[in-house]
Parts: sequence; structure tokens; C-alpha cells
Amino acid sequence: MKPVVVRDIPRADPAIIEMLASYGVATVHEAQGRSGLMKTYMRPAWPGAQIGGSAVTVLAQPGDNWMLHVAIEQCRPGDIMVVGVTTDNTDGMFGDLMATSMKARGAAGLVIDAGCRDVKDLQRMGFPVWSRAISAKGTVKATLGSVNIPVVCAGVAVAPGDVVVADDDGVVVVPSKDAARVAEAAKQRVANEEEKRARLAAGELGLDIYKMREPLEKLGLIYVDSIDDLDK
Amino acid sequence: MKPVVVRDIPRADPAIIEMLASYGVATVHEAQGRSGLMKTYMRPAWPGAQIGGSAVTVLAQPGDNWMLHVAIEQCRPGDIMVVGVTTDNTDGMFGDLMATSMKARGAAGLVIDAGCRDVKDLQRMGFPVWSRAISAKGTVKATLGSVNIPVVCAGVAVAPGDVVVADDDGVVVVPSKDAARVAEAAKQRVANEEEKRARLAAGELGLDIYKMREPLEKLGLIYVDSIDDLDK
Amino acid sequence: MKPVVVRDIPRADPAIIEMLASYGVATVHEAQGRSGLMKTYMRPAWPGAQIGGSAVTVLAQPGDNWMLHVAIEQCRPGDIMVVGVTTDNTDGMFGDLMATSMKARGAAGLVIDAGCRDVKDLQRMGFPVWSRAISAKGTVKATLGSVNIPVVCAGVAVAPGDVVVADDDGVVVVPSKDAARVAEAAKQRVANEEEKRARLAAGELGLDIYKMREPLEKLGLIYVDSIDDLDK
Amino acid sequence: MKPVVVRDIPRADPAIIEMLASYGVATVHEAQGRSGLMKTYMRPAWPGAQIGGSAVTVLAQPGDNWMLHVAIEQCRPGDIMVVGVTTDNTDGMFGDLMATSMKARGAAGLVIDAGCRDVKDLQRMGFPVWSRAISAKGTVKATLGSVNIPVVCAGVAVAPGDVVVADDDGVVVVPSKDAARVAEAAKQRVANEEEKRARLAAGELGLDIYKMREPLEKLGLIYVDSIDDLDK
Amino acid sequence: MKPVVVRDIPRADPAIIEMLASYGVATVHEAQGRSGLMKTYMRPAWPGAQIGGSAVTVLAQPGDNWMLHVAIEQCRPGDIMVVGVTTDNTDGMFGDLMATSMKARGAAGLVIDAGCRDVKDLQRMGFPVWSRAISAKGTVKATLGSVNIPVVCAGVAVAPGDVVVADDDGVVVVPSKDAARVAEAAKQRVANEEEKRARLAAGELGLDIYKMREPLEKLGLIYVDSIDDLDK
Amino acid sequence: MKPVVVRDIPRADPAIIEMLASYGVATVHEAQGRSGLMKTYMRPAWPGAQIGGSAVTVLAQPGDNWMLHVAIEQCRPGDIMVVGVTTDNTDGMFGDLMATSMKARGAAGLVIDAGCRDVKDLQRMGFPVWSRAISAKGTVKATLGSVNIPVVCAGVAVAPGDVVVADDDGVVVVPSKDAARVAEAAKQRVANEEEKRARLAAGELGLDIYKMREPLEKLGLIYVDSIDDLDK
Repeated sequence: MKPVVVRDIPRADPAIIEMLASYGVATVHEAQGRSGLMKTYMRPAWPGAQIGGSAVTVLAQPGDNWMLHVAIEQCRPGDIMVVGVTTDNTDGMFGDLMATSMKARGAAGLVIDAGCRDVKDLQRMGFPVWSRAISAKGTVKATLGSVNIPVVCAGVAVAPGDVVVADDDGVVVVPSKDAARVAEAAKQRVANEEEKRARLAAGELGLDIYKMREPLEKLGLIYVDSIDDLDK
Repeated sequence: MKPVVVRDIPRADPAIIEMLASYGVATVHEAQGRSGLMKTYMRPAWPGAQIGGSAVTVLAQPGDNWMLHVAIEQCRPGDIMVVGVTTDNTDGMFGDLMATSMKARGAAGLVIDAGCRDVKDLQRMGFPVWSRAISAKGTVKATLGSVNIPVVCAGVAVAPGDVVVADDDGVVVVPSKDAARVAEAAKQRVANEEEKRARLAAGELGLDIYKMREPLEKLGLIYVDSIDDLDK
Repeated sequence: MKPVVVRDIPRADPAIIEMLASYGVATVHEAQGRSGLMKTYMRPAWPGAQIGGSAVTVLAQPGDNWMLHVAIEQCRPGDIMVVGVTTDNTDGMFGDLMATSMKARGAAGLVIDAGCRDVKDLQRMGFPVWSRAISAKGTVKATLGSVNIPVVCAGVAVAPGDVVVADDDGVVVVPSKDAARVAEAAKQRVANEEEKRARLAAGELGLDIYKMREPLEKLGLIYVDSIDDLDK
Repeated sequence: MKPVVVRDIPRADPAIIEMLASYGVATVHEAQGRSGLMKTYMRPAWPGAQIGGSAVTVLAQPGDNWMLHVAIEQCRPGDIMVVGVTTDNTDGMFGDLMATSMKARGAAGLVIDAGCRDVKDLQRMGFPVWSRAISAKGTVKATLGSVNIPVVCAGVAVAPGDVVVADDDGVVVVPSKDAARVAEAAKQRVANEEEKRARLAAGELGLDIYKMREPLEKLGLIYVDSIDDLDK
Repeated sequence: MKPVVVRDIPRADPAIIEMLASYGVATVHEAQGRSGLMKTYMRPAWPGAQIGGSAVTVLAQPGDNWMLHVAIEQCRPGDIMVVGVTTDNTDGMFGDLMATSMKARGAAGLVIDAGCRDVKDLQRMGFPVWSRAISAKGTVKATLGSVNIPVVCAGVAVAPGDVVVADDDGVVVVPSKDAARVAEAAKQRVANEEEKRARLAAGELGLDIYKMREPLEKLGLIYVDSIDDLDK
Repeated sequence: MKPVVVRDIPRADPAIIEMLASYGVATVHEAQGRSGLMKTYMRPAWPGAQIGGSAVTVLAQPGDNWMLHVAIEQCRPGDIMVVGVTTDNTDGMFGDLMATSMKARGAAGLVIDAGCRDVKDLQRMGFPVWSRAISAKGTVKATLGSVNIPVVCAGVAVAPGDVVVADDDGVVVVPSKDAARVAEAAKQRVANEEEKRARLAAGELGLDIYKMREPLEKLGLIYVDSIDDLDK
């Protein structure tokens, strides 16, 4: 793999990205058929943020944040930097100085399969980060990586320009070519859930709303009054 | 194991459950002889809740939340659903729709040895969940499990009707037959701690209050002014 | 290893400790050459605290908090108790009663490579704790350990009297003999960062500020407009 | 929980135990409906052993092997000692001296949710152990536990007298009351697999043998010659 | 994601695959620029095998091995099945019956980001498997996945037809378009290492062979006779 | 921390080292009072080796094996290289070429808190390695560390010249100043165990040999014939 920076990447329609961000991770993940979800160790550095954006991808060496500096230049307003590393690592590759720089460029946030630090500053600045660890471990600037090539981040293959949605539930990635379709499916899902929510709140059971009783019975689920009835 | 739903389960006296809930996890755990504590990976989806209730138990397949729908029907006001899975899993088996349904039935909360999602909604609704992970990963409805049979959840054997107490320190389970005795022991423990707390706050040392100096000396603990004195 | 309590330990200059505490973990860690940082599993029991203090060290057995009682007597105002254990363990060796006692002696906080409990109380009291787990698991008082000997805590060798700094980013340890030098280096680092922060906020890139473009090019980093240009 | 040793426990028919042992863990686990399997971190201290026996259960404190000495006296020829601990622990609670003692009593092996040591000696002696870790960490003898009460070991509830089967695939537990039924089911399963194995070896596909093509098609599985055909 | 099976996939030249297999994982990984290595939790079910082959990829649900049956039909002689799952899972999705079927089709081995079982049989049959766990946990056949689409397995993006090399050091993946180039680079690397090995065996130091002394000195590495000389 | 190589380190008496090696890890660990044992994730790359030697210590960056080349020059016949890293890392920092070089210098083995590779070659060469992972991940040579300064490796503080003993049970470290005393204690322990082993093999119980019955009874251990007797 030659170290390379790709300058021009496709980006999804901002209106679509905004729609996806507004629906949140769980809905978008379901709407695209339960795929694209990063591993559960990816947690927000501070709670409450909910964002969407186009992925500017980075492949970095463990403990080396040189390529993040390179990648910041490639970020446009609304972009989310997505960092994969070549091996499991939790070092604090990102802190308040880099966040200042990304914010100055209008970037929306960072998703990194490693550590971040200065979490109090990040929260104060309102710059959202999802990472596998909080770590003050400083990093070197010694080895090249690449920017805007396909990477794997927290178990998900991410291409430059894919739509990333992140909130307190985690991080999900939508291929850019699917973004419009998934946004539409998410919209319908939300509409559909509204009605379900009202019925459930009124005391109806999912068993009845989703018509589960018959298939459960067919598969052999039995009801007994007492566990002792089971052995009879 | 035949898939079965048991309808009638013993429940502890609500007054006893309320007492246990009020004392919290650490005190109840100590009061029953340091047993019944779930593994430390069980964390609240949002901080601050402190609840007690009777366990409605569920045994589910990994990545399949069908039996949770079944179990909701078995919940009565104040109950806590306790979900064990047949293998390690972090998928988001529970979210805001199910929480809406459980709340409508008056259930007190959920304890699940897997993942939950929609954490922002859960907090807004005030529905408390303890889980091993936050995960938006959607689940299927394909395989039967059981409701209200004995399960193992996060390392603890839980029988239907056992009293579950959960707070920011974790989750503890009290067998229903022991509930009254443990509540009484917890009450005495709290009373006893009040006095200790006052003395400690006034500067007395645990070494003196608990009369530890003599046994420590007997076992051979020595005091030196400097580490260099040790080799003399 | 004979079980021993060492009474007199060297402590760094309180003014130096205060300086180090004010700079925080990330800055101090960098200022001493990226060493002394505890593993990332050490997390604050509640967010927001930022402290510094002299280490009163404890070596304890897993599941046995006897030596913590012994160590409290050795704490002076501003000290931080640092607990290493002889094997991986998450039991709740520390709770609100011990925190009451430490607070009465003026201790600044606790760093423990095991669990703590009563987190709600700890936050209410404003007593900060960094631990590898939250756990209500009660402990015994059966086996001796030592106080104020060199210990390993969360991957870092800590000598009694070393300066400990802890905040939301984690925990870092500065050997007492290096404290003044590291504080001075941290001061310069902060001053230096102020200027960088302003330039980054104004839109300048780290690539230019740190003069990275030339070394990156020398090592072979190439820029292309499109990934397709790479194979040409 | 009062510390107690129960002397008389029910044991399954030795012929049934022998049958179950001969079928091995995977077959027995399937035959009882995919339950009773311990977590995958339970690994043999040395490869190749395959045993079955009645469980003599132990509940021990972390880092304290006192109750194992107590339990050895309760072991009869062919028994397997099963040790649960009150909290996650990897200390070496068992080594060659205890193995010598268990062997002298005719015990078949050890299953422990903690560590064991002297693995070279254990292999030389032919005494099989399944544990969560290999660890030379010595343990104390300070705190009581219990023998022959229900315990949870590596995620499975084990009652005294349950049949334990262990091999290179792990450890499975069969409730004593189900032993005969499960042994019969395992026998049929093995017979059934013999025929399947021959057909598969001859080149028939599971897709055809298990008649999967139709249900797969009904659920919507499609076949294309090329991934590019998918978007047409 | 529509569930799909792709029948025709590109495969690398068998001679190239054989070359790559003969060089082993460490050499191939280095030769392609230190990329493509699966996470270190991927371990051989039994030691000693060293294979190469074209990837037949599978995306499966946790605890559901239905798609593996589907994928076997797509395997040709020499292929390696590579299984990614939609969420972390260790269930035993593969055992001796499936190995029998794959062997009958001439497949070279299996790489699975989940569990396998019947390890003794697999070794006896000489069918090599790399997995994240050994687990007897049985799986269901309920949910569709896909065959021969791009998947992520143990942290690496794998396309159908990529060359997979596996041995006791782990698993590495080479994109099919790079296979010839990487094989050539590996060949040169091995030749180059032969000469190095002889010189090192004769007592020459890497410091001298690789001419490291000067760059080390330039970066500031200092030599002292005693640690005490350092503070002078 | 200035990067430094210390040339002259104290080494323990070879006869003492040989004694310690012959007793093995478990015995030496007990003989020095249950301290100095590395974490249980340190496993031999191949089974069966049992060695002792003087520690040549290395502090390295994650994913950077430059300092190992530097350290080889400092190894004398019989030495064991002990590598700590500044952050958790599993990369393959050591392989067959380095092993060739160390063997040429007469070094006894390697203990590394990271990964190693070429395990088949290491076994064929008979060069023993204990590591936290097997990994083919290649490393860079970019950042300085130090040789023969005190390091923490797998949870244990190791000084240059400390005696390291390693076998299939793990790795233990004995401070050089304690080596003779610990060797003597180990010798007595082994002699003492011989007699115990004979009595246990003859059927005597540890309960009687160690006179445990009385203290167990005093602490309240009770014996019942049946669990039902407990509630009477």
C-alpha cells in the first residue's frame, strides 16, 4: 500500500445527510437492513451529541497521529473524520488542539478506532468524538499512512464519502450510493414507529400488534401456570 | 429444554422490596453475606436510578429479542425483567418501543446480559436499564426461549420472583425466600454504619473503631520510619 | 516481602504539586516525555474532578481491603492513596465510609487498580476516585500487605511520595525527584500551546505550523485527485 | 449464605455418565437442546482428555483455595470437582499437590472458573483440568465458602451431582435428572450423524440433505452470477 | 443489504497462491507493506497447518450457520471459506460434519470470526480452521446472510477471490489484483533474509547489518556505563 | 526520560539462577512470598521450555522494535531480554531473525509484553519466548526507547539484572538482591512438598496434613448430610 492522500471524494447530498443524522443511529442501522454498525466499544467522549457527515477516512499507525494532521486539510464543512489503525491501539491520538483546527474548518466530528484526550475541553468546545478509549497517551509523528482510501474502523468497512451517523447509541456507516434510499426507509420506519408507540403506550402488547402469538405457538411455545406443571 | 412461559411466579412482599431498594446494592449485597452480585460489566444505561422489584426472567438466544415481547405480558406493576442469553452477546435487544410497553404495564426496569439502545429516549422516559453494552444492533425474532424459568444473568443464578435491586453500583439478586431476612440485616447494617460514619467524620480511624491494631500486629505487620530501616 | 508500613515518605513541594494538578494529565504526561500514564481502564468514578497529590502507596491482596484502613492513618492533607493489588481484581475495596475517613484526614483522592462502590455518595461528598471498575463486591480483612513501598498500579511503577495527577483523561505519575522539572516543562508547553491554539482557531493548518509538508513528501507521501489516479 | 458442606449428593448412573463422556461436549450440548455449555474461556490445561463425572461443587473466594481442600474429602471415584468463585479471578488455586490428592481419591478431574498451575505436572500425571487461566499465583486459606451447594461456574448453574462432560471443545453440564434422557438423545444424534457424514463425504451437499433450498428461496435468498448483476 | 449468493468470483493464479502459502503469514504481510493482517485473536484450531487459497466470503448472523451450508456449494478445490459475522460472536458455527463436506469439495480450510468445534476431529481429518474461539455452542438456521460479497473478518476487509494465507502466526489477506506483485516481493524478501540470517547466526549484530548506529545517535540515544552516570 | 542504554548491570550468581530455573515459576513465586508474578496473559510461544536468566530490560514504543536491536548487543550468555512497552500493544516485535541473533550471543530467551511471530521457527530453533500475543504485525524503527532501565512488564516492575524464571506456568521476577534467599526458600519448599506429595498420594487428606479441621470449625463451617438439613 503506497501512502497516499486522495483529494476529491464523492459526498452525499447534504439534505440526505441531515435527514439521516436526525433519525439517529438505531433507526438508520435498521433502515439499511441491520448493517454498517461499528463495534460497541465505540463510545462518545461526552454524551448528548447527534451528528451526520461525509467520511474523510484515515489509515494510521498505532501511536502515530501524523496522518490526522494531513487529513484535516482534506475536511470540508460538515465532514466527519474516520480513523482506522493498522493494529489495536488506544493511544490518545486526538485532543483539543486538533479539535480546534477541525472546528475552524467546519468539520462535524471525529470517529477514531483508538483513543482521544482532553475530553473536558472537547465537551466545552462542543466538538463531538467517538473513540474506543479515553487516553492521554501522546503519540509520535514518524510513519506514513493514507487519507481517503477505504479503511476498516471498529469492524466496519468505510469508504471516503460514506455517510457517518453517530449518537449516544454508537456509530453507523451508510455507503454514499445507498444514502437516499436508506434515508427514505428510515423516514418510513419512524412514521411507522410513531403509531406503534402510541398503541404500546396505551397498553396494547407487541405480541398482538406484531401478531406473534400464532407463530410462537406453531414453533412450540407452551404456557403453564407453574413450573411444576412442566414435568407432568 | 422445552420453550415454556410460566405464568404464576411467587413475588416478595412489596414492602420488603421497597426496603431493599431503598438500601441500595452495596448494602443489600453485604447484608446477604456478599452474594448475588452481578458481574461488574453490568452498568446503568443512564445514571441515577435506584430500583427494586420481582424478577420476571427470560432466557433468549443471542441477537433474538422475541422472548422479551413474550415476557412483557407476564410483567406486573413493579416487576423487573431479567434477561439471560445462551451465549455472550451485546446486541441491542431492547429500545424505546419496548420500554414504552413495559412502562405501560408498570414494570420498574430491565436488567439484560446483552445490549440496549435508544439510551437518550430511555433516560427521557425515566425507564431504567442495566446492560452489558449500549448497542444499536437490531435483532431477529426467530428462535424460542423461555420466560420465568431459572436463568443465569451476568454470573448470577436468578429464579423468577427473586428480588432484584439495582443502582449506580450495579445489580444484586436476593432469593425471594431470603428477602425479609436480608432486608432486616440491611436495616441493622445501615443503622450501624450511621454511627461509624459520624466517628470517622470526626477523625477517628477505622484501625481503632474496628480494633484492627492487635490482629495486624499478631499477623506480623511491622512499622518502620523509613524503607531503609527494613533491611537492618 | 515482609508486610511493612513505612511512616515517613518524601513529599514534593505543595506549590509544585498544585502547578502539576492545574495543567492536567495530558499536559503533564507529555511534559515528562510521555511516560507515567496509567492504563486506560482507570476511569473516574464521577466526572469533573482534577487533582494532584503525593502518593501514599498500598499493596493489597485481591478482595481484601485491610491495608487500606492501615494506609489511611499514613495520609496527610493533600495526599492521594494509590492501591496496587497482587492480581487482577475488580472488587469494591473502597466505599463511602472509607471516603469519609480519608476526607476527615484531608486526603485529596484515591487511585485504585481494583473496584470502588457507593459512587453516588462519593460524588455527593466530592471525594474523587479513579478505579478500574465500579463494584459493590464486599471484601474481607484477612491478609497483610504493605503501605508506602514501591508498587505497580495499572501498569505504572509508583514510589511513595511520587506526584499523582488525575482528571477525566486518566492518571499520570511523576517521580518526586522530577516534579519541579516536569512542572516547568508543562508550564512552557501550555504557553506554547496557547499560541498554537490561536493560529489553529484562525484556520492555519498544523501541516504548516509544524512544518510537516516537507518531511511527509520526503518519506514518500503522494497526493492524487482521485483514487483511480493511483494505479496509473 | 452460611458456609456449609453437604455430604450426600445424588449421583447419576455411572453407565449413563460413561455414555455421555464418550459422546463428548458438542454432541451432549446439542442433545440437551443447546444448553448447559460453559463460557468459551474455559480451556483444558493440556489437550486430549475427554471425561465425564458427577459434580462436587465448590463456592470459593477469589485467591483463596481453602474450600478445595475441604471438597476433596467429599469426592468419590469418578467425581469432577467444579469450582465457582464469588468474583472474577484467575489465581492458581489448584496445582500438582491437590491433583495428587484428588487422584488418590479416584476423582476424574477439575473444572475451575479461576486459574490452575503446575500444568506440566498435571499433564504428566494425566490429571485433566479445565480452567479460565494458567496462573502460578499462590492463594491464601482465610475465608470460608461452601461445598455441594448450587453454584454458577463460567456462566452455567451447576447443582451438586449434575453430570459434567469435558473435552477439547469445552465443558457442558447436564442436570442429573435429565442425564438418562440426554444420553439417549445423544446416542440417536450420533447414529444420525454417521449417515450424514458418509453422504457428505461422498460429495452430497448439506443444502440437499437437509432440504434447505426451498426455505432459503422462500425467505428471499437470490443467486446471481456476478455482484454487478445485483444492481440491475 | 439484499441476501445474495454470487456464483462467479475472480480467483488468483494457483501458482501465485502456492508461492504465497509457502512464504507464510509474516513474510506475506511484510511484503505487501504491513497490511491485511487479521486481529491476533484469530488462532488455529490445531497447530502446524500452513495454507493459501482464494476467499469464498460469507456474511452470517451471530449464532446462525445457515449461510455456511450455502457457501460450501460455492467452494472449488483450494478455496478457503472466510466468515464474517454481523456482531461479535463466539458460537461454534462449524464442526466435523461441515469439515467433511468442505473436504469432499477440495476446499483448503476455514477462517471464521466466530467459534468452531470438534477440534479433535478437525485435527484428525487434517482440515485446518482459524477462529476466534473454540466453542461447542450449537447454532440455528433461521436468518439469511450473503455469500461472496465483500465482508469484514477479524478487522480486515476481504473481497471474494482475495488470496488468504494462514499459519501458526495468524491470517493475512492479499487483494487478488496485488497477488502476483506481493508474491514477487515476498520472494525477494525471503532471499534477502537468508543472507541476513547467516550473518546474524555468525554473530554480527543487526545494529551493524542495518546500519542503525548513526541514526540512533542522531536521534539522541546515549550510552552510559551505569544508570548512576545518567544524572551526572 | 532521556533515551539511554546502560551497559553494566549487576547479574546474580549463575549457580543461584540455575537453582531458581530448576524449581520453576510456581515454586519460586511462592518462595519469595507470592510476589513478582507477571500477568496471566503472558504465555509461552511454544510449550515445554523452562529457563532462568538475568534481565536485560527494554522500554519500547508500541509497534516499534528498534530498541530490541539495541538491546541484543547488551545481552551476555544466559541473559533474558525483558521488554515493556509504553502502551498496550500486541504487534509482532520479535521473530526468527532476532532469535537467531540472540541465540548467537547465547541469550536464554525473551519475555515481551507485546507480540512475537515466526512461532514455528522459534520452536524449531528451541528459542523460548513468552509474550502477550502471537502476531505477524510488522513494526517500524522510528522512535527511541531505553535499555537496562527499570521497566514494568506485564504488571511487574523489573530492574536490569533481576532474575527471571519462566516456564509453562508463566513468568516470575526475583530482585537480584533477593535471589540467594529465595533460592534457599524454594529449595526448602520443594523438600517439604516431597513429603506432602507422598502422604497425599497415599490417601491422606490436606485437611489432616495441614490441620485445617479445627480452624475451619472455629470460623463456623458446618457439615450436613443434605442441603435440606440446612434450613432446619
